[in-house]
Amino acid sequence: MNFSSDNASGVAPQIMAALAAANEGHAMAYGADPITKAAEAAFTDLFGRELAVFPVATGTAANALALSALTPPWGQIYCHRNAHIEEDEAGAPELFSGGAKLALLDGDGGKIEPETLATAIAGAGFGVQHHSQPSALSLTQATEAGTIYDLDEIAALSGIAHNAGLSVHMDGARFANAVAHLGCSPAAATWQAGVDVLSFGATKNGAMAAEAVVFFDPDMAEDFLYRRKRGGHLFSKMRYLSAQLVAYLQDDLWLENARHANACAQTLSQGLAALDGAHLVHPVQANEIFVTLPERVLNALKTASVGFHSWGNEGLSRFVCAFNTDAADVERTLKIAQAAI
Amino acid sequence: MNFSSDNASGVAPQIMAALAAANEGHAMAYGADPITKAAEAAFTDLFGRELAVFPVATGTAANALALSALTPPWGQIYCHRNAHIEEDEAGAPELFSGGAKLALLDGDGGKIEPETLATAIAGAGFGVQHHSQPSALSLTQATEAGTIYDLDEIAALSGIAHNAGLSVHMDGARFANAVAHLGCSPAAATWQAGVDVLSFGATKNGAMAAEAVVFFDPDMAEDFLYRRKRGGHLFSKMRYLSAQLVAYLQDDLWLENARHANACAQTLSQGLAALDGAHLVHPVQANEIFVTLPERVLNALKTASVGFHSWGNEGLSRFVCAFNTDAADVERTLKIAQAAI
Amino acid sequence: MNFSSDNASGVAPQIMAALAAANEGHAMAYGADPITKAAEAAFTDLFGRELAVFPVATGTAANALALSALTPPWGQIYCHRNAHIEEDEAGAPELFSGGAKLALLDGDGGKIEPETLATAIAGAGFGVQHHSQPSALSLTQATEAGTIYDLDEIAALSGIAHNAGLSVHMDGARFANAVAHLGCSPAAATWQAGVDVLSFGATKNGAMAAEAVVFFDPDMAEDFLYRRKRGGHLFSKMRYLSAQLVAYLQDDLWLENARHANACAQTLSQGLAALDGAHLVHPVQANEIFVTLPERVLNALKTASVGFHSWGNEGLSRFVCAFNTDAADVERTLKIAQAAI
Amino acid sequence: MNFSSDNASGVAPQIMAALAAANEGHAMAYGADPITKAAEAAFTDLFGRELAVFPVATGTAANALALSALTPPWGQIYCHRNAHIEEDEAGAPELFSGGAKLALLDGDGGKIEPETLATAIAGAGFGVQHHSQPSALSLTQATEAGTIYDLDEIAALSGIAHNAGLSVHMDGARFANAVAHLGCSPAAATWQAGVDVLSFGATKNGAMAAEAVVFFDPDMAEDFLYRRKRGGHLFSKMRYLSAQLVAYLQDDLWLENARHANACAQTLSQGLAALDGAHLVHPVQANEIFVTLPERVLNALKTASVGFHSWGNEGLSRFVCAFNTDAADVERTLKIAQAAI
Repeated sequence: MNFSSDNASGVAPQIMAALAAANEGHAMAYGADPITKAAEAAFTDLFGRELAVFPVATGTAANALALSALTPPWGQIYCHRNAHIEEDEAGAPELFSGGAKLALLDGDGGKIEPETLATAIAGAGFGVQHHSQPSALSLTQATEAGTIYDLDEIAALSGIAHNAGLSVHMDGARFANAVAHLGCSPAAATWQAGVDVLSFGATKNGAMAAEAVVFFDPDMAEDFLYRRKRGGHLFSKMRYLSAQLVAYLQDDLWLENARHANACAQTLSQGLAALDGAHLVHPVQANEIFVTLPERVLNALKTASVGFHSWGNEGLSRFVCAFNTDAADVERTLKIAQAAI
Repeated sequence: MNFSSDNASGVAPQIMAALAAANEGHAMAYGADPITKAAEAAFTDLFGRELAVFPVATGTAANALALSALTPPWGQIYCHRNAHIEEDEAGAPELFSGGAKLALLDGDGGKIEPETLATAIAGAGFGVQHHSQPSALSLTQATEAGTIYDLDEIAALSGIAHNAGLSVHMDGARFANAVAHLGCSPAAATWQAGVDVLSFGATKNGAMAAEAVVFFDPDMAEDFLYRRKRGGHLFSKMRYLSAQLVAYLQDDLWLENARHANACAQTLSQGLAALDGAHLVHPVQANEIFVTLPERVLNALKTASVGFHSWGNEGLSRFVCAFNTDAADVERTLKIAQAAI
Repeated sequence: MNFSSDNASGVAPQIMAALAAANEGHAMAYGADPITKAAEAAFTDLFGRELAVFPVATGTAANALALSALTPPWGQIYCHRNAHIEEDEAGAPELFSGGAKLALLDGDGGKIEPETLATAIAGAGFGVQHHSQPSALSLTQATEAGTIYDLDEIAALSGIAHNAGLSVHMDGARFANAVAHLGCSPAAATWQAGVDVLSFGATKNGAMAAEAVVFFDPDMAEDFLYRRKRGGHLFSKMRYLSAQLVAYLQDDLWLENARHANACAQTLSQGLAALDGAHLVHPVQANEIFVTLPERVLNALKTASVGFHSWGNEGLSRFVCAFNTDAADVERTLKIAQAAI
Repeated sequence: MNFSSDNASGVAPQIMAALAAANEGHAMAYGADPITKAAEAAFTDLFGRELAVFPVATGTAANALALSALTPPWGQIYCHRNAHIEEDEAGAPELFSGGAKLALLDGDGGKIEPETLATAIAGAGFGVQHHSQPSALSLTQATEAGTIYDLDEIAALSGIAHNAGLSVHMDGARFANAVAHLGCSPAAATWQAGVDVLSFGATKNGAMAAEAVVFFDPDMAEDFLYRRKRGGHLFSKMRYLSAQLVAYLQDDLWLENARHANACAQTLSQGLAALDGAHLVHPVQANEIFVTLPERVLNALKTASVGFHSWGNEGLSRFVCAFNTDAADVERTLKIAQAAI
């Protein structure tokens, strides 16, 4: 029973099978192979438009490289105060951008509100040589709090950014969970709502190590080949990166995996929330649950070796469901918790 | 029949099996898993000493991150004019080091001679604020020309570097081929000859995407965790990177693979060299053959769809053998070539 | 009547005379001249201890270069949200540090409170590879709000920083104004209170373009020659930079200039504060006055071409006094303001 | 008698007077002052065309900032192996460009030959993601060897660069000496021959610390304000930087100073070359003399405390004449040398 992280889950069998299948004969290196072409075609189909897509192996690489294409070194990138790019990438955006600044915005439930963004931009000092220049907005979808921007919110934020000349990046490490929740097309959730560049995550949702940087305007990707290579993120045996992505998109595996994780999170969160003294910190919309639990519940779960993350002494805890979370584990966990009340 | 690149070869079955075997249950993310511990232990055993080892997925990442730990931004790194770090990494060492300079040294057969290094260092201007400061030496083993430094050469070059206060890096993208040729221990080929940090390659020799940065002095690796993470090179599902390395070292797979590739290259190069009008450009010591071939031979091979790299109109060509090169393919290729004379 | 900025003031006659006097014959370039030696000796005397001092020409250069010596690229530097290094240097600290992060702290009157710093450090995640690592604290003295840290406050903040392994930088663009207010020795205001590196400003207080980066521990300055040079901040005709600093320190010119500016600011602020409807936003402790003024006063001052900075429509205004502010101008300005009530 | 460096010379009296004259009253900071406007107009007049000009204080700043506007971080800049940007700026171009590479070209007398450049560009691998991408050519005029490109040479080199999509930078630390020698207009020596950006030097030729970065296509300077500021190279009291440049251009002071220095170098070099056993290493075209001298001459000059630079034991020496070199000193020096033969 492990709800510690979707990074602790393994690789989906369909993706494992695709890797084995890709291991036939020789293939041109560095992306000049048929599987990589197939991955590119699959993304074009998925988003229903011309685009430029670049496989990489980690979410931090996807984010930092994508952002580096949207900002000069003296730029600033607006993001939520708790965004992964600020808190969990050890300065990767600063490295790849050559020293751009992350401008941190507050917001409940991990979400930036349009007015907050508008106010920040209004005070930024465009064209004033002393100030870092606003260059991009980065939205996390699903957010670090397990919540999800709806389409109107994305459109409103993107509109403010574009009106001020900024580009819009979406950190979609859990993009599948967001689309599964929204029930819309991937196109509606991104470029149709104003997103320019997407970090399309697969690793947390069943891939081994595969993400895709998707530029909806290929002109913005003009230099990206060089950025990826000099970051050490160009794979020589690219077919194995691409094979993961092809399998991930095939037959809606990405959505099926995410729907399962989201559904498990619903069951688990509703069960936990019903406990006396428990309290959901954020609405549960994706596969992450932030909840405060009574100490006896925490103790009972730990005693039973249920894996989850717990902070400090106020009972704040995180449970993450994954593509392969066992529904029986959810039930067992809830029983242990209920028995402890 | 494909001799275009060892990057075009696939993944060794033992490594594929290890990946499948690693896909059991949950595992702590970011390297806190048992397979990563096992990889660390395997490297300690292999080199017979305390060390610090960091798995990454590409050779460029391994080299650029390793070098960044050895040089300040105003440093200069001595390397051969044709080194991969200079010619084929699109400026990755400059990115990760914050702008250090590669100082290019000439040398026949892809090798730097001790006197060349000594002369360069003598003229460098240590302590003069106007000049970039010598900080490291990077040796490629096997070299880009398919040759191999012998132990005395490594020791002589390392000695000069150390005497001047420089650290020594070895780009071992084809380290296995070098050790297979030298017939010595990995320890003798590295730290016992003065190497401080090794980019230990596996990808070209049968892994999917796995290299290891090995610091023989763990103190030099103090900051490496941060360097790797902010480069986007820390894998969340690290077990799959580590599993490749464990399998690669197990039962001397790395050496067996390299011996096979080297042996194929010997057979192929001797056969080619015996052709009238053919000429080996460099001694063949690892798995790469640089040879000039008569035009009719080139044409015959191309007509037969033999894969290899060919430059310009003087017949200069490169054939690379891999862990999975079929001995029958070597024979067939030689027959085609011989028939064209 | 100009209170717009101390940067709009000219050069003190003593410094102008020193420049003319320095213009005799040849002098070794790049700092190997007697005037630079004299400047170094003057700083050693001033602070009463061994130190390493480096003249540069701008405050941004002094700050960004100094900070770069205190942080790795994956470090974070704590500073006040309104610090010059964050708001008015267009990302210079990020450039020179190779991408370190400024971590912004709130605080009334431009000052960081010890508890705020302690809380931030406690939550920083030392040693966690995903997080930027706390590396330095930067205090602005006098602050951007025209207030001044007292010695106990500096000691408390430095103590927290040092206990956590951070270095302490002081942005002393208006250090003279601070010392003039505190009435203590420069030593007491810096190293005796825990400051490791000081950006000692002269430009705003009567120099033409001269600042000094002062390392109280010379070991921390080991690499600084290279940092300064590769930033393009090493002057070939260094004697003219050093001559400004020598004259600035001679006969307490720096303190005399600052005392005059502070005294003018006291007179002006007390006069303005006494106006009906006026309100001092921050205590006036140095040479800057932040005040809200009734609209009729603002209009009267503008009509009379009094130079000052004014924001938005709530009457928030800034008046800055300089080393050469004319006391009669202060009187005239107050009369105009009083007449408008 | 000091021929060690033009950096050892002082400030021209006209420039000193201009600084004193600029020290009147208040002036808007950061370049919004009338003297800076006058400097801009003076450059427009001098070059006879629309342009964008930015004063900075050091040659290294001028070069590194200018180049940063011409290259992406994965770019490469062609320059002579002995160029100041390679040998004497401690990596400043790498810092400001974010890690671009200097590609070093050989050439006699400090000059790049068109064929050398063409060959290098032909082998660069445009569009290949593994390779740094050619982005700029930097020419030094006068060269580090004291020689001067003639107009046809500049045009030929610029043509090759432009045809390949590269921009052309000129390091004109001794631009005045070059124009004085060429006897052409500044326009003919730069934009009419294909130069896109010029580092226009004044410091070595009588200014205190003033250079100008001149963009002949203002569109290329779009971001330069931010580059200069975040490099710490924006002066608050800009008027004093601009005043030097205005005086330098007024009444052809820049050319007069250079003509004097060049003429002194002619006299001195011809006298030295006539000595038995002496040999001019390069043609003397500007104000620098590279000469090998018999040991007894070297000894006699040193005994007489004549200042000059001397390398090793083969008698290679450098003499530099400046705007204020005393003709009598030249005569005295020659007499000492002649007496030693």
